[in-house]
Amino acid sequence: MTITLYDLAGAEAERRFSPFCWRARMALAHKGLDVETVPWHFTEKDKLPQPNEGRVPVIVDGDRVVHDSTAIADYLEQRYPDRPSLFGDEIGRALARFVQNWTETVLQAGLVRLVVLDIHRHCGPKDQAYFRRSREERFGASLEDVVRDRETRLPAFRASLDPLRRTVERQDFVSGKTPAYADYVVFGAFQWARAISDFEVLAANDPVTAWRGRMLDLFGGLARRAPAYGD
Amino acid sequence: MTITLYDLAGAEAERRFSPFCWRARMALAHKGLDVETVPWHFTEKDKLPQPNEGRVPVIVDGDRVVHDSTAIADYLEQRYPDRPSLFGDEIGRALARFVQNWTETVLQAGLVRLVVLDIHRHCGPKDQAYFRRSREERFGASLEDVVRDRETRLPAFRASLDPLRRTVERQDFVSGKTPAYADYVVFGAFQWARAISDFEVLAANDPVTAWRGRMLDLFGGLARRAPAYGD
Repeated sequence: MTITLYDLAGAEAERRFSPFCWRARMALAHKGLDVETVPWHFTEKDKLPQPNEGRVPVIVDGDRVVHDSTAIADYLEQRYPDRPSLFGDEIGRALARFVQNWTETVLQAGLVRLVVLDIHRHCGPKDQAYFRRSREERFGASLEDVVRDRETRLPAFRASLDPLRRTVERQDFVSGKTPAYADYVVFGAFQWARAISDFEVLAANDPVTAWRGRMLDLFGGLARRAPAYGD
Repeated sequence: MTITLYDLAGAEAERRFSPFCWRARMALAHKGLDVETVPWHFTEKDKLPQPNEGRVPVIVDGDRVVHDSTAIADYLEQRYPDRPSLFGDEIGRALARFVQNWTETVLQAGLVRLVVLDIHRHCGPKDQAYFRRSREERFGASLEDVVRDRETRLPAFRASLDPLRRTVERQDFVSGKTPAYADYVVFGAFQWARAISDFEVLAANDPVTAWRGRMLDLFGGLARRAPAYGD
């Protein structure tokens, strides 16, 4: 049976740019599950199945509705135990949370300050108004001001990736020889950035770029085929 | 059979302050193995069993000599597979490397700039000369200058612990309900600092402090009983 994924989209419906939705999308592919995505926009709170928290991803699997990317990963792991595991054992699941917390507090926090204006640029008019208001309130600055010195901040952002860089220098994936959920969490952030921005956040010779390329190749190039910038 | 661990010591032989040796010490305890530690000083390169790279930890297990904390953890896991696992499955092992890379590039790199002069203070005269020369060359500054503004840098250091903080707010240990190697890697850094410095790097109400307390309680208070500052 096909699972439905409500997936954040830009003015162009095929442009999908939520880091959290990409986690779910890759996790569904990892489990080999059929999925149909429904493009969803920031201002369509009333179009989500219940229950939800006004955010995506939300999935519908038969009569089950699951929202929040972490809850979705846990649900898929429990509901489809015979498919390839997203976490491995309990230690793997716990350590994936550390990687997720690093992704949210370091990687995504750094990326948003590089590309937030590019997100705005890809939204439709109604979403643009919502996005600007909510994000400018969060940052206490205009979107233009947030990204103004991004070239200057790029070296520090790249340096902040050292834990990831050292890891994927020495093993193909964050999760080892083959990818698993921790990879999808980290990748979601990079796919978010490349979906809406031509600002190259990684240097071409960075081992992180090579790893991102391996991630783009997964599942028949699922993420590579999606509308985005760069390779 | 008792395993011998060559363990970095200060002028006071019982004061053990290598983050890498603490990883090994905790890993040996996790495996429930008997250990005898030999205090070793920076300038005693010729006193280590062969092979070595002039650094500790080095362990001797029967006729096997293993050096380097990562190699020691891998050795213990392979040699004692029936004892509690340090890594869990292959995903757990891979993700522990990410935690280790974060520990080395963020946590230890931040800590050393807070406590490097305190390390010097706890070494004997011969080690002091070696330590000052090698570290001042590495930093391109006097040890006094490296730590001079440490109070000012403390908030940024504490903020850099966010990935760890969020993790241990939501689960007892980095590795989940019970500790494993990733915990010992992170803990080694904090135990290194508290062994030689009364500069409190963590706030009392920080969830990281509570986690450190749980780590100090492990194995009958192994690390808590060792000479150190603070609780």
